[in-house]
Amino acid sequence: MPTAAASKPSPELIFGSLISYQHSFALKAAIELDLFTAIAEGASDPASLAKRVNAVERGVRILADGMVVQGFLRKENGRYSLTPDAGIFLDKRSPAYMGGMAEFLVSEENISNFSQFTDCVRKGGTVSNIGDNSKPVDHRWVAFAKAMGSMAAPVAGVLSQMVNASSAGEINVLDIAAGHGMYGITVARNNPRVHVTALDWPAVLEVAKENAQKAGVSDRYTVRPGSAFDTDLGSGYDYVFITNFLHHFDIPTNQKLLRRFHAALKPGGKAVTVDFVPNEDRVTPPIAAAFSMVMLINTDAGEAFTFSEYEAMHRNAGFKNTVLQSPPDLPQRLVIAEK
Amino acid sequence: MPTAAASKPSPELIFGSLISYQHSFALKAAIELDLFTAIAEGASDPASLAKRVNAVERGVRILADGMVVQGFLRKENGRYSLTPDAGIFLDKRSPAYMGGMAEFLVSEENISNFSQFTDCVRKGGTVSNIGDNSKPVDHRWVAFAKAMGSMAAPVAGVLSQMVNASSAGEINVLDIAAGHGMYGITVARNNPRVHVTALDWPAVLEVAKENAQKAGVSDRYTVRPGSAFDTDLGSGYDYVFITNFLHHFDIPTNQKLLRRFHAALKPGGKAVTVDFVPNEDRVTPPIAAAFSMVMLINTDAGEAFTFSEYEAMHRNAGFKNTVLQSPPDLPQRLVIAEK
Repeated sequence: MPTAAASKPSPELIFGSLISYQHSFALKAAIELDLFTAIAEGASDPASLAKRVNAVERGVRILADGMVVQGFLRKENGRYSLTPDAGIFLDKRSPAYMGGMAEFLVSEENISNFSQFTDCVRKGGTVSNIGDNSKPVDHRWVAFAKAMGSMAAPVAGVLSQMVNASSAGEINVLDIAAGHGMYGITVARNNPRVHVTALDWPAVLEVAKENAQKAGVSDRYTVRPGSAFDTDLGSGYDYVFITNFLHHFDIPTNQKLLRRFHAALKPGGKAVTVDFVPNEDRVTPPIAAAFSMVMLINTDAGEAFTFSEYEAMHRNAGFKNTVLQSPPDLPQRLVIAEK
Repeated sequence: MPTAAASKPSPELIFGSLISYQHSFALKAAIELDLFTAIAEGASDPASLAKRVNAVERGVRILADGMVVQGFLRKENGRYSLTPDAGIFLDKRSPAYMGGMAEFLVSEENISNFSQFTDCVRKGGTVSNIGDNSKPVDHRWVAFAKAMGSMAAPVAGVLSQMVNASSAGEINVLDIAAGHGMYGITVARNNPRVHVTALDWPAVLEVAKENAQKAGVSDRYTVRPGSAFDTDLGSGYDYVFITNFLHHFDIPTNQKLLRRFHAALKPGGKAVTVDFVPNEDRVTPPIAAAFSMVMLINTDAGEAFTFSEYEAMHRNAGFKNTVLQSPPDLPQRLVIAEK
């Protein structure tokens, strides 16, 4: 996010916002070249980095200097080293590696859609052909599933704590639009009593199944290929996970969906939405609030809903005791409602 | 620029960098829709704004909320108002309006070039066909001239002070690659003793001539259409302005150019470069340092040079007493050298 405007008149924030796309492409290039892993492995000056990442020294030097400016590298006496965050999230050998996000977040499709922002505002929704998320958009959601699993870890930890506090016996989780599946899979890995049923389009579920296998929970992982709008969801679930899903649709559509999820829960079961939930002012906190723009650009009618909107949607769908949880230091929040 | 990494591990800076392109497109859309002028003129809620900018209310609301997040608007009780900077630089009725920058800075060409960042690093230069700036690239430089004149004002003020301190008599300024011409034109407007000779490609000079006319200095404004590499520059100048130009070329090329500019000056005359000049570490200050990436992406061999590089280039071209000036609060610096 750009920093606040200076107290004396300055076009700096305007200029900075207009050129901020450069940061996205630069970081994506550094990730694609695996620059961070190369530095972590000891190639620390432009000449050895160039050899290591198969590029021209001048190009690598300018990119690495740019990564210092952007806050991912440090430079001392012409040698680069990783910042702590880069070491944890951008060194490919790290278990928390998140570089894969670049491919989805800075995809050609996203750039192309965003470059039509003005038309989207005029129309009030995407001008692309991927706007109706009740239909499969395989190329996009398979890419999402492959790229974004690493982002799920912090919230998946919060979900695990919640589920682990459940009373004895088998715990059945329905994971709606599972994608990479990492929310349900993590919860299952952290608790042998958990059985997960994952719903998504068939092509996407292939990614989730692979992740479940890697996590060693395949025997407690069932898939239901199809649409959340009409596929038989089963019933008697303790939890329905609704992660990064409701923001794709408008309120009436979400109420219809929530009624289906309500029916699939056992009495006392809980619907758990993980999403970008801005405050009631719709302009804070920054990442959650700005997410509405992403939905304006990429969907027909989706956006980031406030808690009061979530509360009403859940109430109208038959839920009670809807609460908001804001785990510290995470861009996403949890909306939890009871059947 | 993204803010510094938090002290505890967080992917926030990585995520923020990867999605920062969204800010560029959002601000460009708000400028294209003239949202800021509409708000300044009193349309302050989504419904009246939608009517005013000819868009759907939902689209305008989400965009305006985004502009609050990005720091250009304020929101109170559902009504938007401009921040002081937006009032000065984004209200079309303001003399300091800078919205025109969006078209050049977030052009399709720039986005397309940046989306090939990885290939540029591998190659060590642009993979586009606009990389050789010794040849005319009319579509680009006419667009630059039309869009970026407003950015020149602060430095043009600094140049005026310098020129106004010159001893009595006619002051002849050669403005290399004049573009919009606003450096030379401003200096001429501020001092009736100044005569400007502007050099640029013919199509670009049309923009400069129009600006000179608007500023009422046409009678002291001469143009020399052509290339800085081989056009007859004339001679006996008090100043040569070299604004945003040398960053397009490598050091040997710049020395060749500087020798030509040296020859065009009268004894004691000054070459004045206005450019992004990073510190010797090449990673501070941020805007100047990051500018090398822009040149890696868009040129064959250009970059943001340090002062020690400028000093050597000028010395090798026959200049003496090269000094660096850093006007406060400006991204650009001045390199001034004497014949």
